[in-house]
Amino acid sequence: MAASTNSFLTGNQTNLPSFKPKPISQSFLHLTKPSTLNLTSPTKPISIRCASTSAGSDPRVINFAAGPAALPENVLLKAQSELYNWRGSGMSVMEMSHRGKEFLSIIQKAESDLRQLLSIPPEYSVLFLQGGATTQFAALPLNLCESDDPVDYVVTGSWGDKAFKEALKYCNPKVIWSGKSDKYTKVPTFDELEQNPHAKYLHICANETIHGVEFKDYPVPKNSNGVLIADMSSNFCSKPVDVSKFGVIYAGAQKNVGPSGVTIVIIRKDLIGKARDVTPVMLDYKIHDENSSLYNTPPCFGIYMCGLVFDDLLAQGGLKEVEKKNQRKAELLYNAIDESRGFFKCPVEKSVRSLMNVPFTLEKSELEAEFIKEAAKEKMVQLKGHRSVGGMRASIYNAMPLAGVEKLVAFMRHFQARHA
Amino acid sequence: MAASTNSFLTGNQTNLPSFKPKPISQSFLHLTKPSTLNLTSPTKPISIRCASTSAGSDPRVINFAAGPAALPENVLLKAQSELYNWRGSGMSVMEMSHRGKEFLSIIQKAESDLRQLLSIPPEYSVLFLQGGATTQFAALPLNLCESDDPVDYVVTGSWGDKAFKEALKYCNPKVIWSGKSDKYTKVPTFDELEQNPHAKYLHICANETIHGVEFKDYPVPKNSNGVLIADMSSNFCSKPVDVSKFGVIYAGAQKNVGPSGVTIVIIRKDLIGKARDVTPVMLDYKIHDENSSLYNTPPCFGIYMCGLVFDDLLAQGGLKEVEKKNQRKAELLYNAIDESRGFFKCPVEKSVRSLMNVPFTLEKSELEAEFIKEAAKEKMVQLKGHRSVGGMRASIYNAMPLAGVEKLVAFMRHFQARHA
Repeated sequence: MAASTNSFLTGNQTNLPSFKPKPISQSFLHLTKPSTLNLTSPTKPISIRCASTSAGSDPRVINFAAGPAALPENVLLKAQSELYNWRGSGMSVMEMSHRGKEFLSIIQKAESDLRQLLSIPPEYSVLFLQGGATTQFAALPLNLCESDDPVDYVVTGSWGDKAFKEALKYCNPKVIWSGKSDKYTKVPTFDELEQNPHAKYLHICANETIHGVEFKDYPVPKNSNGVLIADMSSNFCSKPVDVSKFGVIYAGAQKNVGPSGVTIVIIRKDLIGKARDVTPVMLDYKIHDENSSLYNTPPCFGIYMCGLVFDDLLAQGGLKEVEKKNQRKAELLYNAIDESRGFFKCPVEKSVRSLMNVPFTLEKSELEAEFIKEAAKEKMVQLKGHRSVGGMRASIYNAMPLAGVEKLVAFMRHFQARHA
Repeated sequence: MAASTNSFLTGNQTNLPSFKPKPISQSFLHLTKPSTLNLTSPTKPISIRCASTSAGSDPRVINFAAGPAALPENVLLKAQSELYNWRGSGMSVMEMSHRGKEFLSIIQKAESDLRQLLSIPPEYSVLFLQGGATTQFAALPLNLCESDDPVDYVVTGSWGDKAFKEALKYCNPKVIWSGKSDKYTKVPTFDELEQNPHAKYLHICANETIHGVEFKDYPVPKNSNGVLIADMSSNFCSKPVDVSKFGVIYAGAQKNVGPSGVTIVIIRKDLIGKARDVTPVMLDYKIHDENSSLYNTPPCFGIYMCGLVFDDLLAQGGLKEVEKKNQRKAELLYNAIDESRGFFKCPVEKSVRSLMNVPFTLEKSELEAEFIKEAAKEKMVQLKGHRSVGGMRASIYNAMPLAGVEKLVAFMRHFQARHA
């Protein structure tokens, strides 16, 4: 995919000036000789990101948060530079009428760039909404089926389960496969799915943020009129996706493409316009589609930030290039875990491990608090696992530079050498 | 109300360095002698706001938008200064986990400052939500009544009408008074309201953004168990309000207190917990109350911005002081209209004219486009009236400095002198 021709963002996220690690051998054998490790002393924090603004010389942290999560530095600096006066308009994006020409140019470019990134076919609408994916859990059945209609849910983690439970209010959903008994570490093979041939839709969560389980391919609805729906909140725009396989793709922005407060819905146009009478107007896709996401005041600044990220992703070469970077980062981290002789463990089945969220535990679980504490001293933050599963979790979304993962891996090896 | 003791914002919005107008006589007689007017030539734009950032020397505009609307300059500059690295945390507010200690400190201070500003009693909850006031139009009946319950709506403009129409889906609402036949220029006297003694609630829109009609006092529900509900989107925090008179106050943030994408709900706690089974989880007040607005990822950056504005309002001396400034601005503008011998007209009944949104027309309506065009040349933007009513509208929210209104008034007098 070609870089955007009107990109204003330059540079590559993995080009970090102040940290040029030597190649790290992926052999775990190094760990038996800690004195040979190429590591800065853990008591001397390595800053791989340096603030270059009036905020002073505080180094930026390496942020492994699951979302809201790290944003590209060039996007943040761009947003900072024009926060007070957007491109000579005399006002902040936060002060613009959502119906004025300035904001219209922002939202239209954001949509156009997203369409280019994901090669979204023209028969799909792109909506910029509010309320998070959780609001869509209700909007989907309210717009796509009647109260007695069967729909199928494949539950590979907590988010799929939440989506299912919300649907119980509005239709006749069934969990046709659940990974719960395996503590959500698997994705089913598609031929084992017992789909209802009358199901109006088949719902999946393409990447489970908490459990680190990701679909690598997608099932096909058995009902020829059924549609596949995917919650892509935590892997949206992390790799190319064939949108035409889906009826609806939806995603909260706050993992890969922007700040919290924006929800993106990509929906096939023929599915729009069938909301039930009781649907709140703000959950009716037709209202938002007819009004180009401007029925009421949208989350303007958040949409603007998403637009800056889309532009940056195009400048990186599009989602194929982004996927390569994400694969490299994930490979590095999973290898470090798998090559630790069980010191670190990732419970997820290898073939469906997420490129975005890497949960892992320590064999000696009593060391986990120490691991998190020492990592924080090295400016690596938000590594604690979700409260429902414990352990650690490193979220390595698009904006996490390779150097950030390299630093984590080096730290893990050093930690193991000291505690094995 | 005392200024916040931990305020980090200094200065007064009406102290603008580059524009110190001499007192403008409110007598329209000057207009017969344009040569005596104390005005800078209209061909030489007056900058009353100067950018002091890396964005360059572009002057800021005077933004009369109805919302999203102008934000206080010191708030914008503060947000800009810490956008890339919030107070040494090493990350932007947009990158913070909503469950981390940094963001918790932000949302808790925002709530605390808002409670201080409005003297919110402890028996009320404060929720920071998404979806705009329009989402609340559905959430209110879904949470507060059953499908056959009667509720009363007083409709003084387009927003009250929208709230009523959404309620039709969920209960048995009745418009007990409408200003439509008077083109929404009035508020009823309260004793003429034919309230249903069984109505679960009485709904008003405290300030109609489009029509410029504002309640100066509030009706009392006839049903002793009924509650008063007010949409305060466009006059929230513009003046003190006795919260204890209300069951629910709700407001989109994007007029007076922040960017779009945040909706604030202040609700008496005994009204929480009665949502119908079909209520989408994101519209259930109990869910948000139990989770301190963190059930799912909230609009973090927007809440942070609201917090900066609340802090600024406290630093100005609280809402009594803010109200005085708003009264002075509105008086100046309405006087200019009323003293123009009909050249300008405001259709709204004098006693209920909004302090926030001032709609006006030109007697010679063919000059309106010229008025808006010339004003824009003077950096006064967004003066066009809403498409449903035409004419002009100057929104003069909290963040509009007195000097901005003075400049508009001077421009109006000069325009009249040239076109009378």
